[in-house]
Amino acid sequence: MIPGPHPHVIVVGGGFAGLWATRALSRDHVRITLVDRSNHHLFQPLLYQVATAGLSAPDIAAPLRHILRRQDNVEVRLGEVSGIDASARCVHLADGDVLHYDHLVLASGATHAYFGHDAWAPHAPGLKSLDDAIDIRRRVLMAFERAEAADDPAERASWLSFAVVGGGPTGVELAGTLAEIARHTLKDEFRRIDPSEARVRLVEAGPRVLSSFPESLSAKAHRQLGKLGVEVATGRAVEAIDAAGYVIGGERVPARTVLWAAGVAASPLGAMLDAPRDRAGRVQVEADLSVPGRPEVFVAGDLASVQQDGKSVPGVAPAAKQMGAHVARAIRARLAGRPTPAFRYRDMGNLATIGRMAAVVDVHGLRLSGLLAWWFWLCVHVMFLIGFRNRLIVLINWVWAYWSYQRHARIILGRPRAP
Amino acid sequence: MIPGPHPHVIVVGGGFAGLWATRALSRDHVRITLVDRSNHHLFQPLLYQVATAGLSAPDIAAPLRHILRRQDNVEVRLGEVSGIDASARCVHLADGDVLHYDHLVLASGATHAYFGHDAWAPHAPGLKSLDDAIDIRRRVLMAFERAEAADDPAERASWLSFAVVGGGPTGVELAGTLAEIARHTLKDEFRRIDPSEARVRLVEAGPRVLSSFPESLSAKAHRQLGKLGVEVATGRAVEAIDAAGYVIGGERVPARTVLWAAGVAASPLGAMLDAPRDRAGRVQVEADLSVPGRPEVFVAGDLASVQQDGKSVPGVAPAAKQMGAHVARAIRARLAGRPTPAFRYRDMGNLATIGRMAAVVDVHGLRLSGLLAWWFWLCVHVMFLIGFRNRLIVLINWVWAYWSYQRHARIILGRPRAP
Repeated sequence: MIPGPHPHVIVVGGGFAGLWATRALSRDHVRITLVDRSNHHLFQPLLYQVATAGLSAPDIAAPLRHILRRQDNVEVRLGEVSGIDASARCVHLADGDVLHYDHLVLASGATHAYFGHDAWAPHAPGLKSLDDAIDIRRRVLMAFERAEAADDPAERASWLSFAVVGGGPTGVELAGTLAEIARHTLKDEFRRIDPSEARVRLVEAGPRVLSSFPESLSAKAHRQLGKLGVEVATGRAVEAIDAAGYVIGGERVPARTVLWAAGVAASPLGAMLDAPRDRAGRVQVEADLSVPGRPEVFVAGDLASVQQDGKSVPGVAPAAKQMGAHVARAIRARLAGRPTPAFRYRDMGNLATIGRMAAVVDVHGLRLSGLLAWWFWLCVHVMFLIGFRNRLIVLINWVWAYWSYQRHARIILGRPRAP
Repeated sequence: MIPGPHPHVIVVGGGFAGLWATRALSRDHVRITLVDRSNHHLFQPLLYQVATAGLSAPDIAAPLRHILRRQDNVEVRLGEVSGIDASARCVHLADGDVLHYDHLVLASGATHAYFGHDAWAPHAPGLKSLDDAIDIRRRVLMAFERAEAADDPAERASWLSFAVVGGGPTGVELAGTLAEIARHTLKDEFRRIDPSEARVRLVEAGPRVLSSFPESLSAKAHRQLGKLGVEVATGRAVEAIDAAGYVIGGERVPARTVLWAAGVAASPLGAMLDAPRDRAGRVQVEADLSVPGRPEVFVAGDLASVQQDGKSVPGVAPAAKQMGAHVARAIRARLAGRPTPAFRYRDMGNLATIGRMAAVVDVHGLRLSGLLAWWFWLCVHVMFLIGFRNRLIVLINWVWAYWSYQRHARIILGRPRAP
């Protein structure tokens, strides 16, 4: 650790934005404290694979301490931020500790939001953390077990009815993979039910799935989902969700397993800054990603609301990495007494996977769908996974899953979380 | 599924005994219901690797349904047995269902026992299930985090003090691996503590560790543990355990992490049979493994108390597999009207691993220790892991861990379990 005189940078959040900011400051004369509630960096783009039993939790996560072990100017602190006092320049942790900073990088990301319907949360879990993923995996696997044990046909059908609310990339991935599990993975494993009779519905309130893609790719994704066995309903919002099902267009649909991929809200830490925020709670930052009136406080990643060319910078991993790296440059400029540069998002394209051998890709006007897009998606994701070992294991798991239709992590762990 | 007229065999427990019995009956004209609380068969000999973050849960577990998908005469039932009515020949499940049997195979194994000190349980978790292993992993990883965050030197030391109670194979494996984590795996990752200053103590009430091995190998294991950095105390029993430490020989030892590997007791299902049981609660069976006075009920695996040549058949995986296969033969004989054969345990030898490149092996008079024994242990364990995929992944993880001293599953999941 570098002793006292160096300026102290506190980075809150070890996701893409926070970790990239931290690593970009590795040669600067600062001392950094990286605070996170989890002990690991999570490769969030593959989280749906843990939720659907294709990968195990350690396949897509690496301990933050391990990633940063050779970066001497960083200290990793496992802890939860309970308050930020921007006037006094300090961060309060839930265990009572108070950390003072010269520069603060807030990169605590997003959480799922139920648009005022918090009562739906226990019945329609969202997917943001590894614990969420293992909870969803348990629910999905248990649903088939319950269906097998049920004597009443209506009860059985409700256990074999799955719904995913929200037709963005996560919703599409979950629905496509659930259909694959029902149709292929569980083949021959049950004696009383036929898992392939399971119904997987994807409900999107907007007019089309994958609305961040060009319309032609949305239409292709819609068709590919249909081929995989997913029933897609667009233009209709869910009106109610409870333990037995949901209501749409005034009609009740029995479904014991409803997954929530419809809305994200910014991390509540954004509200501690006394800064302007947009409707989703994201902090509206200056051009250099600092908070208005607080040049020593930066916000990066999903928590930052950044407008560029009349559009919002999307909440995707490449944007978070770019913001993280930018904040490091801004801090460096400020320490050197230079003006801070403005952030500029470079759009690297847009990918979404749909299921077995199906994906859509939109990269600088190149539009792909189907098998080719899927290979492209696979290569990009394996390439970006942190750490050689993870990449190799993930690749082997995928090759195996591809050949055998098997998903190796079909293990029910723990008890259901209390609602 | 084979229809009605075939005799119904209920197998309770999908561990080595139950699964081997089930598979051995694959060509017989019976219909089998395999009941287990978990959806997976667990390769218990490697459970300590999950507890110490070397392997992830799905690496050592496979869904029972998947293993048995092609065996048409088996139905797998996820459920908890709440009662056995041997006079009415039926098994009650916790969900209210009642299953009638013609033959019952009880193979529900063992659980950990605190010898009347149940108050120790929340402070000294044992290792029997994947949930146990993930709980222990969380405690061990959190202890280093807490030590790093502690300001008080005594508090810090107590978080860096680990104890394993019980010097059998599980205790030795856990202690040896904890020492390796402290000395090697966490190197360079902390800024305020030196993980290699952690103390790992192994406490064994009997006169030596690994008492099921010849004395010369116990002595070698003792020395190898010392070389790995484990402080071994034999001949002294723990007198008390609480959240802050334990008491031994009237002296209080601060230790925030105490793991329990001292005692096993038979599954409580054994008590539902109205059969004679030994001190550990195991059912004292007839020579053919049936229950006295109940020729249609068999007990196999850790739940069975079997005497042979004046010694107890040990509670190890090979014995459980042999008993499972024997019960299948006995049921076959009974269906054919032949007398049932007597069970005879074939001792395949005894292996225990101690840590990095250290193990002891005692196979038919061949006694090995150190690196050669470790390779032998490794080959045997990888060979016996169910399923080609698991074997390959586990092998890659081990080769990687061996080269790098790294343990890839260092991910803290979930919240601590309620005491």
